[in-house]
Amino acid sequence: MSRLMRGARPFSTVASALLTDAAATATRSVRQPSTFQVFRDVPELRQLRRQLLRNDRTMGFVPTMGALHEGHLALIREAAQENTDVFVSIYVNPTQFGVNEDLSSYPRTWDSDVAKLEKLNEELSRSTAGTGRITAIFAPTSKVMYPSLPPSSEIDGHGSFVTITPLAKKLEGVSRPVFFRGVATVCMKLFNATTPDRVYFGQKDVQQTVIIKRMVKDFLMDTEVRVVPTAREKDGLALSSRNVYLGSRRRTVGLTIYKALSAAVDAYQAGKTSREGILGAARVIAERVLSEQRALAPSERALFEIDYISLADPESLEEIDVVDTQKGAVLSTAFKMAPLEQTNPGEDCGLGDGKVPVRLIDNFILQPRE
Amino acid sequence: MSRLMRGARPFSTVASALLTDAAATATRSVRQPSTFQVFRDVPELRQLRRQLLRNDRTMGFVPTMGALHEGHLALIREAAQENTDVFVSIYVNPTQFGVNEDLSSYPRTWDSDVAKLEKLNEELSRSTAGTGRITAIFAPTSKVMYPSLPPSSEIDGHGSFVTITPLAKKLEGVSRPVFFRGVATVCMKLFNATTPDRVYFGQKDVQQTVIIKRMVKDFLMDTEVRVVPTAREKDGLALSSRNVYLGSRRRTVGLTIYKALSAAVDAYQAGKTSREGILGAARVIAERVLSEQRALAPSERALFEIDYISLADPESLEEIDVVDTQKGAVLSTAFKMAPLEQTNPGEDCGLGDGKVPVRLIDNFILQPRE
Repeated sequence: MSRLMRGARPFSTVASALLTDAAATATRSVRQPSTFQVFRDVPELRQLRRQLLRNDRTMGFVPTMGALHEGHLALIREAAQENTDVFVSIYVNPTQFGVNEDLSSYPRTWDSDVAKLEKLNEELSRSTAGTGRITAIFAPTSKVMYPSLPPSSEIDGHGSFVTITPLAKKLEGVSRPVFFRGVATVCMKLFNATTPDRVYFGQKDVQQTVIIKRMVKDFLMDTEVRVVPTAREKDGLALSSRNVYLGSRRRTVGLTIYKALSAAVDAYQAGKTSREGILGAARVIAERVLSEQRALAPSERALFEIDYISLADPESLEEIDVVDTQKGAVLSTAFKMAPLEQTNPGEDCGLGDGKVPVRLIDNFILQPRE
Repeated sequence: MSRLMRGARPFSTVASALLTDAAATATRSVRQPSTFQVFRDVPELRQLRRQLLRNDRTMGFVPTMGALHEGHLALIREAAQENTDVFVSIYVNPTQFGVNEDLSSYPRTWDSDVAKLEKLNEELSRSTAGTGRITAIFAPTSKVMYPSLPPSSEIDGHGSFVTITPLAKKLEGVSRPVFFRGVATVCMKLFNATTPDRVYFGQKDVQQTVIIKRMVKDFLMDTEVRVVPTAREKDGLALSSRNVYLGSRRRTVGLTIYKALSAAVDAYQAGKTSREGILGAARVIAERVLSEQRALAPSERALFEIDYISLADPESLEEIDVVDTQKGAVLSTAFKMAPLEQTNPGEDCGLGDGKVPVRLIDNFILQPRE
């Protein structure tokens, strides 16, 4: 496999030539980004991609739904380390939101996303190591992504879908029955539109990484799935676009998700392999925090519900009773942070004033032992 | 779009270099085909494909389940007219057979298939027009095509699937609920493995052509779907791998499917646009033949059942009451030829002695009128 092409030059000549009116309007801002081009449709993007192939350049693809944070930037940095060119897609995919989920309230932050990507390209161009650059942003319309039928979020809805079962029905799929159908479907489309050498996903969404790997394998797709470690705050909280809704009180309590998983990792590293020995360590912490919170007044506490704590096979995501130390395991959990019951004057309650329930997920891979 | 590259030379040097032991054993015959190479797995095939791309050659892909007849050869001839190289796949796809269908009895005729392809390559090399040639046969194992889970034919079975609804539930899909899920899934895999410039399908399986076109469009696949007119016997019977089961008596009666559709086409061409005006012409003929047969003795007759006669929108396959002459329509039908009730000494009853029920399908496109 070809790795980074050192001393890669920006591809601006080709990219400028390919910039159409449609793409120009897609910036939705007065200023046209200077170091990459924005594409709203597939044909022009494909033309650029063919040019790259002809020039033996390599391309890493980072699919996003916008609302970019450090976690996304870490994916792009990794892609730029391993490829001469990076394509980033920004598309809020309707088919992965359930009918009762938050499609309309999902943050849409085009201008700040573009600014972050431009700043990152500056950083990449200053880098002493020969790194690639962001060449293209693919920001398609829903008519481009779903050209025949309107995108359906109904479980029995009509359309052209990729389904990956039983993987898609486990863990996150229990409470979000259309989620992974939507993710696999949109990724299949995005991969076909961009034909990347490598695609980049964050470890944070572990089930997504397992399903995308399975999709690439089962559909004989010619790309490599790269998984990048979860980006975390200093205290360990995994970065997520949803964290802005937490506010200070729920953020403090929400960190329990990290502490509980860390205790379980410690138990595995101390030699435990049984389900109870590993998950028990996490549950003790989560339950202690929960009972502490329950004892507080509504104006001081943040309640949550443990959706699941899972110890699963890393490929099938089947729950396991004992970790096979040759294979390792996936340790994952989801907490539902309830809305604050009562807020205080001047309190930092996050976007939505503490009224938005926030589902937090996190995971660690228990690595195989020799 | 680039068309035929004139004076194309065979690509035997590359292809020979890529022939592996695994591919060699795949011929299943002592003699190695001389003008194309056989591939059993994806990586070597992909290497050849990359070579073709680098040399600006074009590739047309013809997916088959073997049991090759003149209809398949017509697809390959068309592909050779439009591309420098033709890839043919031979793979009997289990996921498109229902649990009660004839997967195990589907004819497997590797040696005669290879012989037919070699003969066709000779014909193509003699052709005065600059035509392409068959370069590669892709004959994968089921483990290559379904690498994770065993291929399931159950409607609720697990696996990685492409679903195209509501198209897949209409017409043929009514009696074959997993059929088009299997077809779309295997075609997605085959297209990803071969990345063809163009793919070739016969008009005979009209619903398949509509579904594959929809799949290519909806999943933003970078290939062109070409539909080749149905190959027919002199009297009009559409070629099908299943015709060998008919025998002389059922073949004669089975020709009714062609006669009935032809009468409906005539009605449209004479100016009729209503459902009754067009389909009525077909039904009259089918019902007359059926009552004639019923009047005969069991040793002389061949009974059949009309599964459906359909007049549908060419893109959605929704049944229509009136043909929109700007769009045209798809006229299609399926007949179930029952097993012969009683056979006569020396009678040609076809493969399986007249005991195998045979489902015949046929269709015509009612072209838009100016």
